[in-house]
Amino acid sequence: MNTFGRIFRIHIFGESHGENIGVVVDGCQEGISLQPDDFGPDLARRRSGAKGTTARREPDEPKIVSGIYNGYTTGAPLAILFGNHDAHSGDYAQFREMPRPGHADFAATKKWNNFNDLRGSGHLSGRLTLALTAAGVVAKKCIAPIVVNAMLTEAGGHANIDEAVEKTIRENDSIGGVVACCVQHVPVGLGEPFFDTVESLLAHLLFAIPAVKGVEFGAGFAAAAMKGSQHNDPIISPDGKTATNNAGGVTGGITNGNDLFFRVAVKPTSSIIRPQQTVNLATGGIETLEVRGRHDACIALRVPVIVEAAAAIVLCDLLKF
Amino acid sequence: MNTFGRIFRIHIFGESHGENIGVVVDGCQEGISLQPDDFGPDLARRRSGAKGTTARREPDEPKIVSGIYNGYTTGAPLAILFGNHDAHSGDYAQFREMPRPGHADFAATKKWNNFNDLRGSGHLSGRLTLALTAAGVVAKKCIAPIVVNAMLTEAGGHANIDEAVEKTIRENDSIGGVVACCVQHVPVGLGEPFFDTVESLLAHLLFAIPAVKGVEFGAGFAAAAMKGSQHNDPIISPDGKTATNNAGGVTGGITNGNDLFFRVAVKPTSSIIRPQQTVNLATGGIETLEVRGRHDACIALRVPVIVEAAAAIVLCDLLKF
Amino acid sequence: MNTFGRIFRIHIFGESHGENIGVVVDGCQEGISLQPDDFGPDLARRRSGAKGTTARREPDEPKIVSGIYNGYTTGAPLAILFGNHDAHSGDYAQFREMPRPGHADFAATKKWNNFNDLRGSGHLSGRLTLALTAAGVVAKKCIAPIVVNAMLTEAGGHANIDEAVEKTIRENDSIGGVVACCVQHVPVGLGEPFFDTVESLLAHLLFAIPAVKGVEFGAGFAAAAMKGSQHNDPIISPDGKTATNNAGGVTGGITNGNDLFFRVAVKPTSSIIRPQQTVNLATGGIETLEVRGRHDACIALRVPVIVEAAAAIVLCDLLKF
Amino acid sequence: MNTFGRIFRIHIFGESHGENIGVVVDGCQEGISLQPDDFGPDLARRRSGAKGTTARREPDEPKIVSGIYNGYTTGAPLAILFGNHDAHSGDYAQFREMPRPGHADFAATKKWNNFNDLRGSGHLSGRLTLALTAAGVVAKKCIAPIVVNAMLTEAGGHANIDEAVEKTIRENDSIGGVVACCVQHVPVGLGEPFFDTVESLLAHLLFAIPAVKGVEFGAGFAAAAMKGSQHNDPIISPDGKTATNNAGGVTGGITNGNDLFFRVAVKPTSSIIRPQQTVNLATGGIETLEVRGRHDACIALRVPVIVEAAAAIVLCDLLKF
Repeated sequence: MNTFGRIFRIHIFGESHGENIGVVVDGCQEGISLQPDDFGPDLARRRSGAKGTTARREPDEPKIVSGIYNGYTTGAPLAILFGNHDAHSGDYAQFREMPRPGHADFAATKKWNNFNDLRGSGHLSGRLTLALTAAGVVAKKCIAPIVVNAMLTEAGGHANIDEAVEKTIRENDSIGGVVACCVQHVPVGLGEPFFDTVESLLAHLLFAIPAVKGVEFGAGFAAAAMKGSQHNDPIISPDGKTATNNAGGVTGGITNGNDLFFRVAVKPTSSIIRPQQTVNLATGGIETLEVRGRHDACIALRVPVIVEAAAAIVLCDLLKF
Repeated sequence: MNTFGRIFRIHIFGESHGENIGVVVDGCQEGISLQPDDFGPDLARRRSGAKGTTARREPDEPKIVSGIYNGYTTGAPLAILFGNHDAHSGDYAQFREMPRPGHADFAATKKWNNFNDLRGSGHLSGRLTLALTAAGVVAKKCIAPIVVNAMLTEAGGHANIDEAVEKTIRENDSIGGVVACCVQHVPVGLGEPFFDTVESLLAHLLFAIPAVKGVEFGAGFAAAAMKGSQHNDPIISPDGKTATNNAGGVTGGITNGNDLFFRVAVKPTSSIIRPQQTVNLATGGIETLEVRGRHDACIALRVPVIVEAAAAIVLCDLLKF
Repeated sequence: MNTFGRIFRIHIFGESHGENIGVVVDGCQEGISLQPDDFGPDLARRRSGAKGTTARREPDEPKIVSGIYNGYTTGAPLAILFGNHDAHSGDYAQFREMPRPGHADFAATKKWNNFNDLRGSGHLSGRLTLALTAAGVVAKKCIAPIVVNAMLTEAGGHANIDEAVEKTIRENDSIGGVVACCVQHVPVGLGEPFFDTVESLLAHLLFAIPAVKGVEFGAGFAAAAMKGSQHNDPIISPDGKTATNNAGGVTGGITNGNDLFFRVAVKPTSSIIRPQQTVNLATGGIETLEVRGRHDACIALRVPVIVEAAAAIVLCDLLKF
Repeated sequence: MNTFGRIFRIHIFGESHGENIGVVVDGCQEGISLQPDDFGPDLARRRSGAKGTTARREPDEPKIVSGIYNGYTTGAPLAILFGNHDAHSGDYAQFREMPRPGHADFAATKKWNNFNDLRGSGHLSGRLTLALTAAGVVAKKCIAPIVVNAMLTEAGGHANIDEAVEKTIRENDSIGGVVACCVQHVPVGLGEPFFDTVESLLAHLLFAIPAVKGVEFGAGFAAAAMKGSQHNDPIISPDGKTATNNAGGVTGGITNGNDLFFRVAVKPTSSIIRPQQTVNLATGGIETLEVRGRHDACIALRVPVIVEAAAAIVLCDLLKF
């Protein structure tokens, strides 16, 4: 389903090369000041243009067509639209026959019986994260004074990110990365065990971001190698603050008054120019494929603001309980 | 919310030291053969008794009070109850004042304004995974011939699990572990992008299991350090089979016909006998706490069957779309 | 789905002749005083025993197995169970072959491929309203000082209800009735247009009560024959109070500060001793059926408290937004 | 919430005088032929222009911005937009101070703390039914060969509808009406007791249509005055066909193979030119209000196609279970 949330709910739609992509934000409280300009900084962080990102250029100008009156939210659903302007829909048809390794071509074509729009990966495109980022801008306003910050901490296994990206471009390859996110000023008591723990809801939305393949909270996978006497965070003040934060701010699925901290693994972009092996579904034979076009050498560069959006959306929904 | 799923839905209830815990399974198709004995093997795998698990002994006998007629599911909701028989509710009250590090005591008491049942961690107890496991038994029957297998691959950072557990017991400490899960015979096309990807739904339910702090699919966090040319799985047959499985069987959020593969990080049990530092909420002072009682030195030992249940439940729901 | 509500959610399970029926109430706030005795008055109003109701006698003693600690709700799900003690499961099997007119026998047997439990109508039995009534008791406590009152205003088309019932019993027949419900002290602003209007949510739950075939708000069907100048309620005070209440307390789908008022049409009990015509599914022939057993001559007599429960549950959920 | 449905889901947005109204249709199967022209007939039936309808003229041209590729649905969400072109937003501000009787002005202004868009009733406007009708066009295609037909059977209490409307116009008043709907070729077994009965889901959506104040199935309110021996529909063939249809095609909340039949009460338009009494919220005094502007003398004239849309949407969702 293209819906996330229980009270603060977002519905996204659109395709990479369609006329519009957009998001409906329902359940946003009335009285929030909201202008198209508010979206600028976050959309700019997600936009391509930097070294290591795709050559596709989109203005990404949000058009708010409902839910706003006199510059404030009304409590009715916000619908926010974006145009697609720089789409090159050339030769995607071949990927029905020759599915790209690492891409959803094969799975999507089977799932939707060939009726899916494959151009630019259609509805499965990373372009849809534009809608998610826009919803995140609204959510961030709603959750103040909670603040969400994410950053890329490594790319291709290296902390020297620029260098790793440049090397990757030279090699006609792509690399992954790790995004770390910290949420400050989180009240105690968010999260609904048994099934809607803070970790469950965040992971649900984070794994919806294309290319995310791992999520961990606090010490995460490292915790599996720890002892309880190391992992338990000593409580040092009556507001629940702890000396360490191995729990990542969540105990028993509930926020405990410390910063939320989690990390997200982003796989390397699947589209690479280097020759790859795939099957030709028409002939059954194995063939070599070279994926031309405009791609991100390191999509992880653009992911931090999307991770922030996801976190803000989840927190906004949790605050309404 | 204590509900998971969209068509195949489970609702759990109960507390560690209450009269019953249970689960309502709604949306299960009619005509599935189901007897109390069917639950035996999975419940035994979850039950304590082995070295490294708690001394609490529960018979865990399922009582199916609705949804069955003449040994088959009817299509009406299944309600499955379990009694709590070996609860020691002695001195949990102290944890309202002296919250245990690593536990939900502080967060839960704040969230529910002191009305929460703290005995044995109440509704937040790992005992609730009994209900999840029971629902998993039903789900496994529904998803045949899909098969789910999970196992503990390391404990406390070591592959030699027995030895690590014994050392931990001697040290009055606890350790975490990593559970790997593989799902075979998965049809192509499960998963609903944008928000209900296979990864999103699985992670949602996996993170609801107490002590889980990380989830990764396929290469997972290792993918962040890989190149696209390494990570992309070459497609080698017309049914979508790939030479490697770095994607963990999911591309674009959709199953691609390969085995689902994911790993789960389990933190060490929070309850340890060793002295720990916490705050006394009545006085505001820092004090030393020793958590007596019966605990699992390595709760991860009991988690694989719960992970299997989670996977089966998610797949059962996805198959209904 | 056997679930109703968005935040305050109820899940019911059970069959007329099964071991237990029950309800899980999730999303109930902590700190509500709740004892088994609290259920007495409402359950007594629903219970049979009066003239015109079935001869089946059930003690209807609620067993609260979770969600309560020291007499107060904890915020965790409440599970409330009832036993079935006076079931006569004699000869329901015949109704698979000879479906009873007015009953769900035919539709249910087709829907669930003969796996449904037909004894006492199984999961479709009016006995399930016991669970709904119990959830209503909890909801009524949560919505105080809002007060819900429903009464039977006519039976079989007559205001003289006792007389109509007695005549019906003598004739071996059954009659329907109309239940009117008034909700007082309703705050302004409940209801979520566009789709979750107060009328939508109430009607949704009211039509789940077996035998309900019509719902109208305020002037209802009479409004269709009115002029706007008659139907519009003049507003007479700054708190929104109106001189008349043709709107039934809801304008634009939102409560307007006046009493909620609605009426519910209850059809006559389908089970009657008088001979009726039906098809024999084995032979294809038309046959005459006499439905022996214990039936309510006027099920509408027992419906008012169930209508109250439905109203309280909806309001409880709406108040949480 | 501005969402309806569980698998086939619609999300609506927009305001009467905003830039766009629209609907997102999610969960629509792939491979349905869909062109803008398909919407023409149903939108024309809803459009104003006939005697008794508002003077506002809108072209109502649908713009499908996502979910379509090469003329067929793709399985991704459809987003359908409409512009507002003939809005007169003159003097709605007065209604915050002087709420119109029968309108949501008072309730909406309180609910949304004055941030709501009152122009043309904003998000609560009947104009939003344009989005519902558009979703209905999609649903009708999906449910074929099921056919839905609704018609206005009386207006202002009279079967001679044209005459009643003309008289109402001359009197500067408005009238209500009754819409009857019949759904043919319905398979046996749709509907999910206990809470998602066919009646519950239909009533939920029907009561979301502005001005609907009553819904009844089959004999409906008349059933309350009937005997069981009259109301029970004799079953006359092995496919469940009955000699009469007092049940309206639903027994036990499940379709029984007969036509679905229900009736909907539509109240008279609240906006009338005749002077009405209301309160001035600024002064607290009672004043006389004359609502100028363009109104429908008989909004019920435009409701049948909206009722059809509601029925088709519900059936489309039910068919997916």
